[in-house]
Amino acid sequence: MSVITLGVVGLAASRAFYDRLGWRAANAGTDEVDSIVAYDLNGFSLALYPLDHLTQDATVPLTKGAHPSVTLAYVVSSPDQVDQMLTRAERAGGALVKPAQKVSWGGYSGYFADPDGYLWEVAHNPFATLGADGSFKW
Amino acid sequence: MSVITLGVVGLAASRAFYDRLGWRAANAGTDEVDSIVAYDLNGFSLALYPLDHLTQDATVPLTKGAHPSVTLAYVVSSPDQVDQMLTRAERAGGALVKPAQKVSWGGYSGYFADPDGYLWEVAHNPFATLGADGSFKW
Repeated sequence: MSVITLGVVGLAASRAFYDRLGWRAANAGTDEVDSIVAYDLNGFSLALYPLDHLTQDATVPLTKGAHPSVTLAYVVSSPDQVDQMLTRAERAGGALVKPAQKVSWGGYSGYFADPDGYLWEVAHNPFATLGADGSFKW
Repeated sequence: MSVITLGVVGLAASRAFYDRLGWRAANAGTDEVDSIVAYDLNGFSLALYPLDHLTQDATVPLTKGAHPSVTLAYVVSSPDQVDQMLTRAERAGGALVKPAQKVSWGGYSGYFADPDGYLWEVAHNPFATLGADGSFKW
């Protein structure tokens, strides 16, 4: 997979949020960033694109609920980092959806929502190892 | 980002589709695969998880329309590979949503939907280079 694109209602607000999280758009400073915002992550890009344009491109109606049925997960190296990341997301304007807690599979995790309602799980998984570049394997 | 999870209505049907595309679940052969199916991709995992369980985990209602507002893109190395991949997806039981065509940004792309309606764009981008491991940068 090369790109995951989140259809957003407010491109500027959504970008401002991810920028406040400390991300830097790969196409920052270009004209393109006014129509699509792309972040290079570990091995692929995450793009923010207005929902109406994404619908036009896909040629079929896309449904965006308050919380879409896709979740993104961010695995970190310790429970402390889960707490820190959730606090950072809240300060950046995200909504805390599920406070960090011990979960059934043995980890520690919580959820926040970005300005468009997309859900991110922030998790510490004691059974997983992250690569030096942030890469993850199941 | 470590994991993208697609909330699915029919886990078995969805897994069968991706298996027919030639993917192999990282947790194939374990008990776990009956409740969550995880594929290791370039630098992260893509998981299929029943929508009701995902909702329970997130603790907020998730909306899944016929076509969710997130799209996944698969960048390939030539226009021929776009055609081949779309044909393969159709044969595997996917729906051709947008036939491959030249697009405004200079590439060649089309869309298919998986059994749950998740949209995949298959694209050749003459301006992009893929890493040997399939990694992509904007």
